[in-house]
Amino acid sequence: MRSHYCGDLRKEHIGQDITLSGWVHRRRDHGGVIFLDVRDREGITQVVFDPDREASFALADSVRNEYVIELKGLVRARPEGTENSEMPTGAIEVLGKELVILNKSDTPPFQLDDHQQVGEDVRLRNRFIDLRRPEIQRKLRFRSKITHYIRNYLEENGFLDIETPILTRATPEGARDYLVPSRTHEGHFFALPQSPQLFKQLLMVSGFDRYYQIAKCFRDEDLRADRQPEFTQIDIETSFMDEEGIMGITEQMIRGLFLEQLNVDLGDFPRMPYSEAMQRYGSDKPDLRNPMELVDVADLVAGVDFKVFAAPATDPKGRVAALKVPGGAELTRKLIDDYTKFVSIYGAKGLAWIKVNALENGAEGLQSPIVKFLGEDVALQIMQRVGAQNGDLVFFGADKAKVVNEALGALRIKVGEDLNLLTQEWAPLWVVDFPMFEEDNNGGLTALHHPFTAPSCSPDELIEAPEGKLSRAYDMVLNGTELGGGSVRIHDQVMQRAVFKVLGISDEEAEEKFGFLLNALRYGAPPHGGLAFGLDRLVMLMTGSASIREVIAFPKTQSAACLLTDAPGEVSAAQLRELNIKLRKTP
Amino acid sequence: MRSHYCGDLRKEHIGQDITLSGWVHRRRDHGGVIFLDVRDREGITQVVFDPDREASFALADSVRNEYVIELKGLVRARPEGTENSEMPTGAIEVLGKELVILNKSDTPPFQLDDHQQVGEDVRLRNRFIDLRRPEIQRKLRFRSKITHYIRNYLEENGFLDIETPILTRATPEGARDYLVPSRTHEGHFFALPQSPQLFKQLLMVSGFDRYYQIAKCFRDEDLRADRQPEFTQIDIETSFMDEEGIMGITEQMIRGLFLEQLNVDLGDFPRMPYSEAMQRYGSDKPDLRNPMELVDVADLVAGVDFKVFAAPATDPKGRVAALKVPGGAELTRKLIDDYTKFVSIYGAKGLAWIKVNALENGAEGLQSPIVKFLGEDVALQIMQRVGAQNGDLVFFGADKAKVVNEALGALRIKVGEDLNLLTQEWAPLWVVDFPMFEEDNNGGLTALHHPFTAPSCSPDELIEAPEGKLSRAYDMVLNGTELGGGSVRIHDQVMQRAVFKVLGISDEEAEEKFGFLLNALRYGAPPHGGLAFGLDRLVMLMTGSASIREVIAFPKTQSAACLLTDAPGEVSAAQLRELNIKLRKTP
Repeated sequence: MRSHYCGDLRKEHIGQDITLSGWVHRRRDHGGVIFLDVRDREGITQVVFDPDREASFALADSVRNEYVIELKGLVRARPEGTENSEMPTGAIEVLGKELVILNKSDTPPFQLDDHQQVGEDVRLRNRFIDLRRPEIQRKLRFRSKITHYIRNYLEENGFLDIETPILTRATPEGARDYLVPSRTHEGHFFALPQSPQLFKQLLMVSGFDRYYQIAKCFRDEDLRADRQPEFTQIDIETSFMDEEGIMGITEQMIRGLFLEQLNVDLGDFPRMPYSEAMQRYGSDKPDLRNPMELVDVADLVAGVDFKVFAAPATDPKGRVAALKVPGGAELTRKLIDDYTKFVSIYGAKGLAWIKVNALENGAEGLQSPIVKFLGEDVALQIMQRVGAQNGDLVFFGADKAKVVNEALGALRIKVGEDLNLLTQEWAPLWVVDFPMFEEDNNGGLTALHHPFTAPSCSPDELIEAPEGKLSRAYDMVLNGTELGGGSVRIHDQVMQRAVFKVLGISDEEAEEKFGFLLNALRYGAPPHGGLAFGLDRLVMLMTGSASIREVIAFPKTQSAACLLTDAPGEVSAAQLRELNIKLRKTP
Repeated sequence: MRSHYCGDLRKEHIGQDITLSGWVHRRRDHGGVIFLDVRDREGITQVVFDPDREASFALADSVRNEYVIELKGLVRARPEGTENSEMPTGAIEVLGKELVILNKSDTPPFQLDDHQQVGEDVRLRNRFIDLRRPEIQRKLRFRSKITHYIRNYLEENGFLDIETPILTRATPEGARDYLVPSRTHEGHFFALPQSPQLFKQLLMVSGFDRYYQIAKCFRDEDLRADRQPEFTQIDIETSFMDEEGIMGITEQMIRGLFLEQLNVDLGDFPRMPYSEAMQRYGSDKPDLRNPMELVDVADLVAGVDFKVFAAPATDPKGRVAALKVPGGAELTRKLIDDYTKFVSIYGAKGLAWIKVNALENGAEGLQSPIVKFLGEDVALQIMQRVGAQNGDLVFFGADKAKVVNEALGALRIKVGEDLNLLTQEWAPLWVVDFPMFEEDNNGGLTALHHPFTAPSCSPDELIEAPEGKLSRAYDMVLNGTELGGGSVRIHDQVMQRAVFKVLGISDEEAEEKFGFLLNALRYGAPPHGGLAFGLDRLVMLMTGSASIREVIAFPKTQSAACLLTDAPGEVSAAQLRELNIKLRKTP
């Protein structure tokens, strides 16, 4: 029903008889002639109908926006002066000869060009119309290209695409599972996988050597702009390869992807230990496009008569850090108040600051509510350490290290964006040398990644002093977003039991939850490791999308009514009976 | 940890120092020397350890089957007379120099070579070991190659890979849905999709033009050898293309796949109307490798004094058909009795037969319990019509057409296999011109495919006399298996409502179930259609697998205990409370 896509017509087609099929994007009546902008996946072409072809002119006159038409016509140059250099097809137009209306359209709930004037709710409720917007089409096509590139790269490198089950048992990622009642095993439920983690490890034990899957994963969490309860993971696992090998092969994949699709060379990814990332950026996924860094000043303020600084400066779990904002002296009092509110979200009790007006005047040249508490000497020592210059502003965080890192880490990002401080477009890195464990809320230890991550020490060393032990995990970070994360896994059952022991998981519980993995480790598990990338995030980053709803075709939304195709439906009493389930009365 | 895969070593590597990693497939102690067969994904290599390298010899002596090792060694020619031409690596061996045991293995529950001696239950329970078998590895790798080929083909032809949701509303395929209780919408459930049918139609309405997805689908049905509750579909949909276009592009895909992966040219696929397939083969997915055909003889027996034949011969819904079995006169009475039992599964009340011993003697040369009822003339006329020759046997089916088709259709397959009558290795075809509707059990009509299939007539014609109207559906059949099926869809809301009317679906019900599709049809839906292939079946056919369990990594089985990783688990009372669900007491 077409010889060309609308968007593909160029000067070289002039003189050709062609057939197009698509949607009426716009219809104009101008000087006794009908102009139809006809749209398909590839773009828009202008078609002209003259009154001397009566039948098709009358039809063209009758069409409305979003009608579906098929037309035959002749490609010709646009009359001089009417070329449109902003349209890829702007040098030509089609003289319409025959027209068929394939389907009519009621007046759509919104015109594609007016999508910004209607609320997102309306657009989501009419998703099939919103998906017609060239911008969304472009993003979903880009997503398809990304997955295709990645599949080709992985296939060329010997990775096998192997499907793992969706209906499975609860997996150990720790988020809430979606449960699926089983009809044949009464009172039992399947769980939807939070990741194929255990299955891919079993595939390594089975000797498949290199596995990948672009896999749907599920977490029953509340929705956010960058999170959907079902999301897609580029899931990779290899055997007989250490962290260098795995990081190398996946770094090449992402570099190749950016080079091919965006013509961007990301260069070699720097590596940064977790501890350095926290120290310098207050984050384990630092955005290195942002030049600001957290600078420790605890030693300088430990002795001052200012409890707010001195107390955390002498607390082993405390931190006092400074964040220099280049040119920040221009920030208004109002903005500083806003930032103070902002850091309070992260638990900071205040936000001390010093403006550097004229360093040549010593402490006189500093403007600040706290210099009088710190003392002039200390204030100047701090200015020197952070390398402050006239016109800068220095923020302070003083609290438990966790609070300081989170508050100043977030403030750094926010100020960097507000003041346009970013120095480059792309800044990738690997964060490595993660701690194996972190403290949980009950004073126990919990796995920072997951309990199958290999520690960098022996089982005995691990059990003896688990705090501070590092793991063989690695995260790929791009522009402050964690693109992917992974680790070398435990392939030794002694080590696996040691980790369970530290985590306070009893033998019985381990057997119950992970028995099939422990069992597999007994029968010749090879050294193995892998990585999982969040595909949705990758596409968002590469397409510059602020919301995940722009990069998946049928998103879920907070309100069930919002997207009919995805709203959960009611089930009948008969269905519940068959599942042997009763709904409780709402209290 | 390796320079080569074990299975890749050949004569040209002789003289090279190499590193291998893999599993000890077998260990032999022979003439004071240790032989290890080392296995990885690519195959097996023989490694020899001499006693003069003491350390590695001692280690090699200590390894057992399924230990994971890394070794360095020298590739050399096998001593003359010890080459093994049945192994791809049989011309060489590796002289082991250094050996590291990467992981030990307990004695496995079964040895890979002995898998046939243990029950399938044991193998499924230890799936990670069963998956090590070269045969299963080969099949799963082949599956990966198939999907890769298909993705490349579709991408080259402009199809976009677009993901559709797994957590969605009930879809209209008619099988039982898996339900997922929603935590945020109390008392409501998601359904897992039986296919992405409605989503892909919405994508066409959105203008994506060509869509594909290798999609997980779910049906809560009981397990069978060729059926899993979650299965994988190669899902395709296009716009502005009629059935010729869609069949053409997908036929090319399957032909290309067979050519590239199996070096088989399937040739042009013949087309056969549904009615002809039922008439000649009693099946809508005829196996054309089998030369036998059903031949109607109702007109010959309508007048005989033998009710068993005469009644269905004169019943408009009846059928009397003959199935000639070449060389079947040799079938024993016992075998014929078995076939009689076999057809009774399909509702046949008996299985009449005539053996052709000596046609030159007329009816005298026929051996049969029924010739006396038919009369000699009629018997001979039938023999002539079916082209019977000496040594043949002719079976008869006489009943409702449905019973005759199913019984003789199945018998045809069975006898063809039993007597090795198949004439070729591959026999593809398209079955076309399906009826739009079939009778349901209550005397109403139900859609033969699904209610979005376009009829070949106008809405008015459809409503006036729906019985006997054809649809624009098509099935691709290979060797008696339905590989894929699809149709041109309804893109016109008037037609869609006409079909719902015939199916007895009220406006209200249509709105409730398919409102979002009906709504989309109002706003410029393009002509579109598509197809879905069963990937699991395709892989089974191409790898010659009898069970789906051989072509998926982690199958589910009837017994929950059978495959621990897939068994549904118990959930806690707290989880149920959160979902506001109560389990009923078992009655």
